Amino acid sequence: MANDTQQQLLELGMGMLLRHGYHNLGIATLLEKAQIPKGSFYHHFASKEAFGIEVIEFYMTQVHAGLDQSLGNRKLPPLKRVRSFFEATEEKYREEGYLGCLLGGLGQELSGVSEAFRRKVEQCFREISRRIAECLREAIERGDLPKKTDADRMAELLVNCWEGAALRTRLRRDPAPLREMLDFYFHSAAA
Amino acid sequence: MANDTQQQLLELGMGMLLRHGYHNLGIATLLEKAQIPKGSFYHHFASKEAFGIEVIEFYMTQVHAGLDQSLGNRKLPPLKRVRSFFEATEEKYREEGYLGCLLGGLGQELSGVSEAFRRKVEQCFREISRRIAECLREAIERGDLPKKTDADRMAELLVNCWEGAALRTRLRRDPAPLREMLDFYFHSAAA
Repeated sequence: MANDTQQQLLELGMGMLLRHGYHNLGIATLLEKAQIPKGSFYHHFASKEAFGIEVIEFYMTQVHAGLDQSLGNRKLPPLKRVRSFFEATEEKYREEGYLGCLLGGLGQELSGVSEAFRRKVEQCFREISRRIAECLREAIERGDLPKKTDADRMAELLVNCWEGAALRTRLRRDPAPLREMLDFYFHSAAA
Repeated sequence: MANDTQQQLLELGMGMLLRHGYHNLGIATLLEKAQIPKGSFYHHFASKEAFGIEVIEFYMTQVHAGLDQSLGNRKLPPLKRVRSFFEATEEKYREEGYLGCLLGGLGQELSGVSEAFRRKVEQCFREISRRIAECLREAIERGDLPKKTDADRMAELLVNCWEGAALRTRLRRDPAPLREMLDFYFHSAAA
């Protein structure tokens, strides 16, 4: 029962943090939406900060599941697998109304004032990059990318450019910046 | 006198918004830092939101001055002028302790909850892109970029990728993501 409540708060919190950001998220509003008695929040989470960090971890379980699915699809060549991960992410953004990326949002808002969030978000980007780099190495071995390609650097670059495009998508409520970035990146990387 | 105070609040506010973001910025702390009597804030600004928007406008006068200087330097070929704008921006980030870009920060934090900020930040990115596109068109005319290059699209792409790299710079307090993005972009654009 406690776990169900916690899970429910993490799910609701994930959507609310994406829209509102961290400082503008009212715990009272969250509990009201969850129809959970006021005052019970600190029964489930040590602090608002601890809650935010747990929401990021919850979000990352979904990201890793998405990476498993896309990068693990051996029917596609490795570069297509990488692209399909970002295309699936775009589809998730669409369902959410093009609000962009939770990591980018919280990273921007909080990394000037919270070491805990700064480190957490950076670690998440590194995890994602590391998994993409593995797939890029496979593309290099197959000759789909030039032999001299630095897979780690190219994976970081892709994640970073995606985040910039995701910000613009959030500002415009429009997926075009994501697609244009992917087209440019994959065209250029293979050249 | 009123104008001096307003100017001082905008300058201080720009630095504080970059570090703290919007919702975490305390007006009382701002006034204390400025050594201005509490309660006088609303004498100078209609609201915290109006203040935030004016800080963005103040920030943009600096951005446009930087664009004037870099893009107007006719001693350099157009692509080098564009790159020099971003290199000068990196230098500004360095002086601030690599906190990234104010537009990216406020855009991420606020565009889910404030139409005023969402529109304002989007408009700023468009202005910057428009000026860069002009310079890219010159590069196309000179043959420094392929004839079929879409200058507007390539300018938007550059601004967006820069923003993603700036987020990562903020997370890592490290300029490397900016440089790697510029190297990739200019190498690929000219190919």
